[in-house]
Amino acid sequence: MSQARLMDGTGLARRIVEETAKRAADLTERTGVAPCLATVLVGEDPASVTYVRMKQNRSRKAGIESRHVALPAGTTTNELIGTLTALSADPTVHGILLQHPMGHHIDERAAFEAIAPEKDVDGVTLASFSAMSFGLPGFASCTPGGIMRLLDEYDVDPAGKRAVVVGRSAILGKPVGMLLLGRNATVTYCHSRTTDLSAVVREADIVVAAVGRPRLIRGEDIKPGAVVVDAGYNPGNIGDVDFDGARERASLITPVPGGVGPMTIATLLAQTVEAATRQTGV
Amino acid sequence: MSQARLMDGTGLARRIVEETAKRAADLTERTGVAPCLATVLVGEDPASVTYVRMKQNRSRKAGIESRHVALPAGTTTNELIGTLTALSADPTVHGILLQHPMGHHIDERAAFEAIAPEKDVDGVTLASFSAMSFGLPGFASCTPGGIMRLLDEYDVDPAGKRAVVVGRSAILGKPVGMLLLGRNATVTYCHSRTTDLSAVVREADIVVAAVGRPRLIRGEDIKPGAVVVDAGYNPGNIGDVDFDGARERASLITPVPGGVGPMTIATLLAQTVEAATRQTGV
Repeated sequence: MSQARLMDGTGLARRIVEETAKRAADLTERTGVAPCLATVLVGEDPASVTYVRMKQNRSRKAGIESRHVALPAGTTTNELIGTLTALSADPTVHGILLQHPMGHHIDERAAFEAIAPEKDVDGVTLASFSAMSFGLPGFASCTPGGIMRLLDEYDVDPAGKRAVVVGRSAILGKPVGMLLLGRNATVTYCHSRTTDLSAVVREADIVVAAVGRPRLIRGEDIKPGAVVVDAGYNPGNIGDVDFDGARERASLITPVPGGVGPMTIATLLAQTVEAATRQTGV
Repeated sequence: MSQARLMDGTGLARRIVEETAKRAADLTERTGVAPCLATVLVGEDPASVTYVRMKQNRSRKAGIESRHVALPAGTTTNELIGTLTALSADPTVHGILLQHPMGHHIDERAAFEAIAPEKDVDGVTLASFSAMSFGLPGFASCTPGGIMRLLDEYDVDPAGKRAVVVGRSAILGKPVGMLLLGRNATVTYCHSRTTDLSAVVREADIVVAAVGRPRLIRGEDIKPGAVVVDAGYNPGNIGDVDFDGARERASLITPVPGGVGPMTIATLLAQTVEAATRQTGV
């Protein structure tokens, strides 16, 4: 059997960022306002520091100003909420990104909820989840939003297809399932308590792996012709799917890296400019 | 094969209402406050008038005061929001039920969102949906909450089982799927665009039918030993499941009527007294 076609997230993300940069420049020219993304980081976890720096660099290249708030590791939930509430009220800030995971002493849900929904360009608030679940106006969580955009780009219409989402996190598994359901897929959620994961995955026309366990999905469990989206991040650039095995059976597959990853940041930037456009009201 | 055992919603609901009446009486004795449910009805649709009257009668029998607001059919969304906002702010009202469906000229979502989450005892707000989705404190939509209580009563543990939800409405299909997922079932959502409904239903250890199409689920599609929950309402007391056929194969099944229906009102009353208890703060 021939190998699956690769879904090129890097190339699509580049085009989205170019479009976003044009929209940002246009907004600035028309209104004098530069879109601004505030990034908030608690503590100095090296991986988080790297992620935030990358997001700031990408923002800058897209004509988005970034404002960084670095809080000490000992910051309390209330202090963090105070910071996020102030940024939510600040008219010069259009989008807010709270880098997570945070320390265990922080109530993450309470912190996320302090972000105004219209500035929730990372799609982490409950309001954004509801919007994704019911097709209401709002911002998508960035990885799920990026996955849907990638499917569209490759003309994958989820309607009537069986989609299996492996993982049920608040910002990845659950929302991507709701987005696929909104596009009329028959959606199944699997997770650590699923009894026979292989059997469920074998039914899938579209598999979204979003659980963070290296090569959990075996190539032999991919239905011939299925579309495979690997949103897993594991050390050593290993996805949640056995890429080599899955590639022999799938029709389309995202590489790791270069598949879902770049789409996440592209979605963040596009949503920030969209937020600035809406808030500027022109 | 022997016939399925019936899941007696009428009997369980009666016991829940008795317990609820005791809790209401206890609250009133301790604090002088009687739990109060406000019912809001737009127009005079005969079925809706009947439903609201039934809910008021049941409330009264459980020691819950009811306050009814009847609005003319021509009420605008803004006027309705005004009414709901006032009830949300009224400290003598503990729960609010907005009878739906409403007229097509009403923005139902905007109306629901005017109900304060702590008074949303019918579980219709986006905040309540998020709470059900993420296991956060909040009120369940009444039918989904009643279904979970019924499963518990019959010792059905969803963990590791395959649950198939047929229907994806905002207050029934979507939330009951999220509650089952929170209890560790592997959950599949089916709907009108599902390609081969029979094939999906045949995989289910637990079937929840919540779509409102008479006998859509055929007996022959029930996996032997499955648990069948029929939340469908169709004229003539006909469920979404072919009861006679399903009964031959299932291990447990809800009758229609007398299964899910009574659990919905019992959940509404229990949640109203719970809301009053929380708001009274004793």
